[in-house]
This record gives sequence, C-alpha cells and structure tokens, in this order.
Amino acid sequence: MMPTRPAPTLSDVAKRSGFSTATVSRCLNFPDQVSDKTRMTVMAAIADLGYSPNFGARAMAAQRTNTIGAIIPTMENAIFARGIQAFQEELNDHGYNLMVASSSYRMDLEESQIRSLVARGADALLLVGYQRDPAIYQFLEAQNVPALVTWAYAANGPRPSVGFDNRRSMEKMAKEVLRLGHRRLAVITAETASNDRAAARLQGIRDAMGAAGLADDDLRVIETPYGIDTGGAAFASLMQESQPPTAVLCGNDVLAVGALGRARDLGVDVPGDVSIVGFDDIELAQVAYPKLTTVHVPHREMGRKAARALIGFLQGGTPIEAEELKAEVYRRESLGPAPR
Amino acid sequence: MMPTRPAPTLSDVAKRSGFSTATVSRCLNFPDQVSDKTRMTVMAAIADLGYSPNFGARAMAAQRTNTIGAIIPTMENAIFARGIQAFQEELNDHGYNLMVASSSYRMDLEESQIRSLVARGADALLLVGYQRDPAIYQFLEAQNVPALVTWAYAANGPRPSVGFDNRRSMEKMAKEVLRLGHRRLAVITAETASNDRAAARLQGIRDAMGAAGLADDDLRVIETPYGIDTGGAAFASLMQESQPPTAVLCGNDVLAVGALGRARDLGVDVPGDVSIVGFDDIELAQVAYPKLTTVHVPHREMGRKAARALIGFLQGGTPIEAEELKAEVYRRESLGPAPR
Repeated sequence: MMPTRPAPTLSDVAKRSGFSTATVSRCLNFPDQVSDKTRMTVMAAIADLGYSPNFGARAMAAQRTNTIGAIIPTMENAIFARGIQAFQEELNDHGYNLMVASSSYRMDLEESQIRSLVARGADALLLVGYQRDPAIYQFLEAQNVPALVTWAYAANGPRPSVGFDNRRSMEKMAKEVLRLGHRRLAVITAETASNDRAAARLQGIRDAMGAAGLADDDLRVIETPYGIDTGGAAFASLMQESQPPTAVLCGNDVLAVGALGRARDLGVDVPGDVSIVGFDDIELAQVAYPKLTTVHVPHREMGRKAARALIGFLQGGTPIEAEELKAEVYRRESLGPAPR
Repeated sequence: MMPTRPAPTLSDVAKRSGFSTATVSRCLNFPDQVSDKTRMTVMAAIADLGYSPNFGARAMAAQRTNTIGAIIPTMENAIFARGIQAFQEELNDHGYNLMVASSSYRMDLEESQIRSLVARGADALLLVGYQRDPAIYQFLEAQNVPALVTWAYAANGPRPSVGFDNRRSMEKMAKEVLRLGHRRLAVITAETASNDRAAARLQGIRDAMGAAGLADDDLRVIETPYGIDTGGAAFASLMQESQPPTAVLCGNDVLAVGALGRARDLGVDVPGDVSIVGFDDIELAQVAYPKLTTVHVPHREMGRKAARALIGFLQGGTPIEAEELKAEVYRRESLGPAPR
C-alpha cells in the first residue's frame, strides 16, 4: 500500500509560487491567459507539492469512481489499439469504465493528461513505458492513485509493469537477421531521445551486432516519426545510398509497411533484394504484402492482465506484481537470406 | 442555448425507484452487488429523471473543466483513430484535453459511458452516429452538456453533426460498380440493426441497384462483426456459392482487407475474377495489395472541424452548425470491370 499525506491546497501552491490563488487558478483553468513564465513557476510549485487541481472535488466525490484512465502515445495506426481494447473489455467485465487520453508522444502533454485524469477522478492509471519526470510518480503517490506501466518491462522500475522487454525482444529479431547472413543492416526508428521503447529496441539490435563482432558504425540509423509515409521515405533514402542495406529493421510495423509499399513502388524485391522486418504484429503486418516478419507483442494478453492487476489492487488491495510477457519473432515472408 | 432545470438528486432517484438511497448508490458504484432487476429499476429511474451520479461534484468543480469527451464504437483497427487524433490535436491547440471511451458497438455501454464522462466533468461530448435512446439527448440537455455527432450527417438530426452522408456515399460506390458491368453483387456488412452507419451504407447500395432496375433479392448480404478474420470468412463463404458474386462491397475497409487476403489465399484474382471495395480509406486500405478501392472519409478534416465547432460553442457561445463533408470514391486497383 502507498503512503498517504495531507493533500496540498491551492493556497499552498500560491504560497510556494509567490502568486495569488487567483493567478494559480487562472493558470489551471485558462493557461493561455497567463504568461509562459508565470505558468512555468506555478506548474513547478504544483509539481513540487504534488498538488492536484481538483483534489477537493475528487475527495468529495465517492472514494472510488470506478473509472480507470489510460494514457497512450497515439491513437493513430492502431499501435496501441488492440491492447487498450482488451484492457477496456476486462475493465467493463468488472464494472469499471475506461477513459483514454493520447499524448502525441509528447511528455509535457502526457503530464497534463495524468493530472487531468486524476482531477477527473481516475481510480488508477495505465501508462506506456517508463520515461517521464520522476515528479509525476511522486504526484501519483501523493494522490494515492496506483499506476501500472505497460508496453515495457523492468524488474525494478519505479512502478510495476505488465509488459515485455523491448531490448531483448528486438535483439532476438536482430539475431535472426544476422543468422541469415545479413551484414549491412539499417534501422528506421522513432526518435529515441523521448521514447524509451524505441531506444531499447535500437539497443537490442546493437547488442546482437556486438555479439556477432560488428561495430556500432556498421548500423545505419534513421530516426523519423512513426508513419507509413515516413517509413516509405526513409526506406527510399536508404536505397539511394552507394551501399544499400540488405536488411532494414523497423522500429514498428507502421514504418515497416511503409517501407514495404515503397519497395514495391521502386521495384525492389522483398525479400530477394532486401529483407524488411517490423515490431508489434498489429493488423497492418498481417495484411501487408509480402506478409511482414515482426516481433509479436501479446497485445490482448497484456491488456487483460494489466486490467486484472489494477482491479485486484482496487478491489482487494492485492499488491500489483510486475509480470514479464513474451514477445517473440513471427517469421513471415518479408525476411529471407542475405542476397549473394 | 439549452434550457437548464434543477438537477435531480440521489434521493429523487430513490423515491422514483422505490429503493433506499443506499441501494441506489450501490447500483451506481458496485453494480455487481445488486440483482439485475434492482439495477434495471434504478437505471430506469435515473434515465427518467436525467440524474447524473456525480452532479454534486460536477457543480462544485469549476464551471468548465476544459475537458471534452468522445465515445467511439471501438479502438481496434484504427477505424476512428485518425479522426479522433485530429480532433484531439485541435483541442490541445486550444487548451482542451480529450478523454475517450469506446463502447464496443454496445448501446448500453455507450449510455453508461456518456453518464460517466458527464459525471467526470466533460464540458462537451463527441458522439458517433445518431442511433441511441432519445432519453440520452434529454439527459445531456438537462446537464447542459453540448454534444456533436460525427461519422454521420443528417440535416435535421436531434443534434448537429459534422460528418458525411453514409447512404449517398455508398450509393456512389455502388453506381461505380454497376457502371463497370457487375450484376451479381454481394455485401459484407456489420450488423445493421444496432449501427445506423452500416444500415445507411447498405441502403445506399440498394438505392443504386433499384435505380439500375435490380431487385433487393439480387443482393446477397452477410452480416458479421467488423474484423479482418470475419471479413475473410464471409468472403470465403461467398466464393463457395453456386453463383458467386463478381463484386463484393464491404461495409468498411477492415472487412475488405480481410476479403482481399482470403482471395489471395484461395487463388482468386482481384479484380480479374472478383472486385472488392471498402469504405473509410484508413491506413489498411493503402497498404493492402492490390490497393483497395474505397470511399475516402475525410477523417482529419472531420476531426478538426468537430473540435472547432465545440470550442466555438464553449468559448464564445457560437451555435454549433451542422456541416456536411464530402466522402468520395477513391478508385484503386481492387475494382475492375465485371468478368465476361
């Protein structure tokens, strides 16, 4: 069980920030009516104190709202769709509602959505990955709102996770690619600085290459936002290099199907000329042609187990235990031996 | 502006239903601890009165929470993903948060989610399609929560919509199919009884057939839940008939890409032997092979305009005006002339 402390008030925030309560209130309700500097100072005070804008309302409402919040990086491309749908179905079966927010992969937006969901009375939160300001974990603790991390697994993270090891899973894929004789590898990945899952997958590829005696410099890396078009553009630029790769490892399936489509347009044979692999095994991977070799994430299992862990805690106080799920390479048509 | 009435209280619900306030409260917070009969009676009283469980908390919280709710039928398969992502981006640009719930295409779940989002303080709601209990519109009016309908368009619906005409859009597609000489048509659609968009699309096909002198009986109709596998199974069963169709019109792209994949597995040439078309133009349609002919829904435009309409109302009282967007046939590879 988490410790509880007296809830900080609006006037605590005013004192700490040096502004009036009216200004603090305006920051929260009409952020575009205050200067950036004022807002930053007030937000820092809020973060320091772990203040929740609507704590009063939250406390006054029923202790439990039977509503659980989830914040996912995006609703596009169905990357998180199946896992969240399974999460919701399990919640509904136990009388809970789900409210979802999407952060557009922006940490500042995620933080404001966490605060908003807590203010709106969320009993618990599902979060994706570990990378966020540690103050957010303190805030959730102060608010007594349990949070579970998914789409990642760390035995000793700041919150328990029900997820998979992005680094080890992508390492398995890279080993399979290397086993087939590929030596000129390229990666198309999301920006790794703000996405710990993407960074871990890239590291997994480097791990496999290191074990095979290859240097970091042997890996061509392109960072680009997740998208079908961006994946296609990155693939096209790789094909224009003097020594194009024989295998392109994509950070997710969306990038990979973009690369597959562009290969078809360019007349590049997959996997005869180039192998292309993805990560996630979402619907796109299954309808792509040729069928995509990818890392299969057990989305539905993850969603259901995450829901059960939170429900067990909320209903019976069962501590949330971390659980590592397996994410395995699903070999399909888009991966073949390196061309001679 | 909408009329306001005094908010009904928990004890009003108790009086009307004939149960104690404790029982009413238990129905709301622990529905599995009361009998179905009790719950039904209490829920009926709640619906009659337009009672919102947390009205007190809502009234006590700021008049405005800067949070807008959206309820979509599913998060899977990215059917609603791009439109909702655009809706959210526009909201974020204006300082609003979005909370999304998904109803699994179940009207009872949608109703409970509408009540929950209002109780959690949503300033306004985005809804998909028109088909729901009229009491819900009364409830929203009593709560003074504006609602906008999308993914459908009706000039005189119970709420304004920013969307497109499902019937006319699918009629255009069917006319194009008929123009290419197809006479043996089949439809794979979601269940039409509980989905007004699916029903309207089916009607649009019948309109086009009627205009071409074909009878309703000439159309083979299979109803199945939206899914890649279900679309594939429906297609396979159509191909086993003694007179298989030469054109299969699918109620959405998810069913259509399932049909395309199964055609490939069965060795059926698309569009040489059979044409397959979809509706939505989501990412799946663009990565499918052959590329899918479909009705292009302007998802991003719809999401952005819906957000602007709600923001205009919330910030300046601008009445929400209905706006019809165009959904046009995008001709790609999967539609060809009828085989001889």
